[in-house]
Amino acid sequence: MSADIGLIGLAVMGQNLILNMADHGFTVCAYNRTVSKVEHFLSHEAKGKSIIGATSIQDLVAKLKRPRKVMLLVKAGNPVDYIINDLLPYLEKGDIIIDGGNSHFPDSNRRYEELSKKGILFVGSGVSGGEDGARLGPSLMPGGSAEAWPEIKDIFQSISAKADGEPCCDWVGPAGAGHYVKMVHNGIEYGDMQLICEAYDIMKRVGGFDDKEIGDVFAKWNTGVLDSFLVEITRDILRFNDVDGKPLVEKIMDRAGQKGTGKWTAINALDLGMPVTLIGEAVFSRCLSALKEDRVRASKVLEGPTIPQGLIKDKQQFVDDLEQALYASKIISYCQGFMLIREAAKTYGWKLNFPSIALMWRGGCIIRSVFLGEITKAYRANADLENLLFDDFFKAAVTKAQSGWRKTIALTTTYGIPTPAFSTALAFYDGYRSERLPANLLQAQRDYFGAHTFRVLPECASANLPLDQDIHTNWTGHGGDVASSTYQA
Amino acid sequence: MSADIGLIGLAVMGQNLILNMADHGFTVCAYNRTVSKVEHFLSHEAKGKSIIGATSIQDLVAKLKRPRKVMLLVKAGNPVDYIINDLLPYLEKGDIIIDGGNSHFPDSNRRYEELSKKGILFVGSGVSGGEDGARLGPSLMPGGSAEAWPEIKDIFQSISAKADGEPCCDWVGPAGAGHYVKMVHNGIEYGDMQLICEAYDIMKRVGGFDDKEIGDVFAKWNTGVLDSFLVEITRDILRFNDVDGKPLVEKIMDRAGQKGTGKWTAINALDLGMPVTLIGEAVFSRCLSALKEDRVRASKVLEGPTIPQGLIKDKQQFVDDLEQALYASKIISYCQGFMLIREAAKTYGWKLNFPSIALMWRGGCIIRSVFLGEITKAYRANADLENLLFDDFFKAAVTKAQSGWRKTIALTTTYGIPTPAFSTALAFYDGYRSERLPANLLQAQRDYFGAHTFRVLPECASANLPLDQDIHTNWTGHGGDVASSTYQA
Repeated sequence: MSADIGLIGLAVMGQNLILNMADHGFTVCAYNRTVSKVEHFLSHEAKGKSIIGATSIQDLVAKLKRPRKVMLLVKAGNPVDYIINDLLPYLEKGDIIIDGGNSHFPDSNRRYEELSKKGILFVGSGVSGGEDGARLGPSLMPGGSAEAWPEIKDIFQSISAKADGEPCCDWVGPAGAGHYVKMVHNGIEYGDMQLICEAYDIMKRVGGFDDKEIGDVFAKWNTGVLDSFLVEITRDILRFNDVDGKPLVEKIMDRAGQKGTGKWTAINALDLGMPVTLIGEAVFSRCLSALKEDRVRASKVLEGPTIPQGLIKDKQQFVDDLEQALYASKIISYCQGFMLIREAAKTYGWKLNFPSIALMWRGGCIIRSVFLGEITKAYRANADLENLLFDDFFKAAVTKAQSGWRKTIALTTTYGIPTPAFSTALAFYDGYRSERLPANLLQAQRDYFGAHTFRVLPECASANLPLDQDIHTNWTGHGGDVASSTYQA
Repeated sequence: MSADIGLIGLAVMGQNLILNMADHGFTVCAYNRTVSKVEHFLSHEAKGKSIIGATSIQDLVAKLKRPRKVMLLVKAGNPVDYIINDLLPYLEKGDIIIDGGNSHFPDSNRRYEELSKKGILFVGSGVSGGEDGARLGPSLMPGGSAEAWPEIKDIFQSISAKADGEPCCDWVGPAGAGHYVKMVHNGIEYGDMQLICEAYDIMKRVGGFDDKEIGDVFAKWNTGVLDSFLVEITRDILRFNDVDGKPLVEKIMDRAGQKGTGKWTAINALDLGMPVTLIGEAVFSRCLSALKEDRVRASKVLEGPTIPQGLIKDKQQFVDDLEQALYASKIISYCQGFMLIREAAKTYGWKLNFPSIALMWRGGCIIRSVFLGEITKAYRANADLENLLFDDFFKAAVTKAQSGWRKTIALTTTYGIPTPAFSTALAFYDGYRSERLPANLLQAQRDYFGAHTFRVLPECASANLPLDQDIHTNWTGHGGDVASSTYQA
């Protein structure tokens, strides 16, 4: 008996992917460094399914059809390199190594290069959907050696989630593009979660809603433009009671971890010079949440406005405005995310399939939503779309949402409820639609103190202010005619 | 004739530092790879001063008193390593290499380690103040080999700026601490500049002020709590007219560069998990400004509120509110900067002198201000101050500023003027003083879809929700009792 694919790493994600593959008629060979895990898996969850086990890397490779397909579901970092090195002696040219972990895309770029030299095809694939997704249909974002795609396409698209009848899995692009797109997905996930948290906080602190009321609001929102997995589970979470009948969520420590792929996305955005402000604020919000002791102390000494009883007269209007604020902020976050991916494609020389990226996120993954169907439509209508805000659907959506968006933020600003993600989204929208930003003053300051030079606006070019030239002005009237060469303030 | 110190790199900063040292009675030996630059400098700016030239690295070293002090003012990066390698053959144990460029602190950490092994003392020194500062009194932030400090202290504190009678130069700490503090200084500089730009934009677009009126406002602000170098030059810039008598600043392209140390600070903040949101937004604002073509296009298709004529009835109140908004936002930015430095000291195991850091920034550098005198006072009163907001002066200042701060942002939010830095500062303040943030919901979401577990609030601990333990709840009622080990959503 020879297996269609081998999978290494029997933690929850690995086990569920194997079971998912078996459900779709593929024979899978399972291996784990701790071999007892393999035996336990075979005699329990895998029992009676088209799943076989391996006792060693060599045994695993021996049991695979050619070209061999070995998928790794292990902790990102060194473990991936160790296992690749263990595999290499037994693999032949044309065999395929698939890393399904949360590897950082520069590592996948490196592995792609190294393995290509050896004639081994490498695929770095984003896998999203958590444990349920892995078991029942994840979003898969494979990238790397294009020759590998025809070999794994059937397995990947069979086990992946389906949305509007299409698999939420397609070829992303070369090298580490698959893990790059997964990284941005996770950054956007950070943003979506932060936006939902702010909406919950506003209803709780400004609206005075209890968890049941808030759960009902999310339930209603889940039937409209915000219909999405994260809104759906938020509804369920708010309705989930502890043994004492009280909402469990209110007993959970308000301290979130901030390491990981959200941080990677924000750092990459800074490196590429793309203003992905919403993900940045979402990551920083987790950092602030982690400073619990400081916050407890600060809450006792730092003053803020008091929220009058019954502040909200028209609860429905308040909730409708909030829905628009959440929707518009979400649109901005996805605009920024796609701006980043677009810039990455340019910078790294990747040809990426934008409609497919949106479709891969449409189902299976954590950020799956009806909304992503609209993004897919937008990119199918115009694959070269510079920005989602230029698409008629989204342009109309933000226009319609604006009044509620602005009213909500004015309210939280006045009454002291932190809405960093809502606020930065609006600041981005107003900045993006500003033909002129005050950076002219900033450039003047930099030239004043650092002789950094500036450019002139085309409409203001003149003999002493030539177009497209670095101009330095002697603002102070003394010294400073030498433009700065080495010093960067 | 034997020189007190040698300086390599005769760009504007290097030349001005040499002239400054000579003014204070030190004999300086100047060297530049392009030797003609040395000759020109000696026969012009340096003429008649205690400045000698060197024709080669060997010649430079031969002309220095022991222990030799060689200061590098060259472009950060490889050039610094090249020159250090050229110097090493001629130096002896106990000689001192000072890098006064804008090196990234990890490079300074590395050079400190490498040179320490060779018995050479390394100093990485931040230098701020632009060309005028270098000539007349910069802010100097030296760190590295502590044994070097007594040898260079006299030169450094003589040429540095003085504030309230004290030199704006003191020993920062070990390894790359000097360049680290300079990096944060530059990040804060990014923030201060962005805040001033937002204030200018608000007066221009909401208040309908012309540049003369805005210049007068900055002139007045420069006599109060905002008294600072950047506010002062902003006043001068707004009053500086082109040959046609029109304000030059309005002709400058509103596109700012975003590379450099501001970006480094934001990335370091993400790495250390500190919510330095204002610098982050300031860097991203430069990124957005750079997307000029997109903005021009977007300005024609994306709608926003129209600002009614004569919107501002009470101009003085409007300006006073704006001053409070700028002041409070600035306080938050410095809080965040010092939170970051504090975390860096912990993470990197550095003992840092906080009152001195504030004092070094008090004069000479780009962010010099009266304000930094208050920060110095706060840290002298309590060197272990966790956060500036816990100091009575700053606590009172933000409390007083709040009403104007909130009114200003509510106004820009309503009328569509982007204020990313003002807004994130307020969001941070309101988040920091929140005993509870909505991260409890976020943790519930992560446990729901990724089995990431959560902690319980102490006051809610119970038999089924034990304190200080990672708790996983089976929210869905199916599967998912295995806590996630490898998968990080």
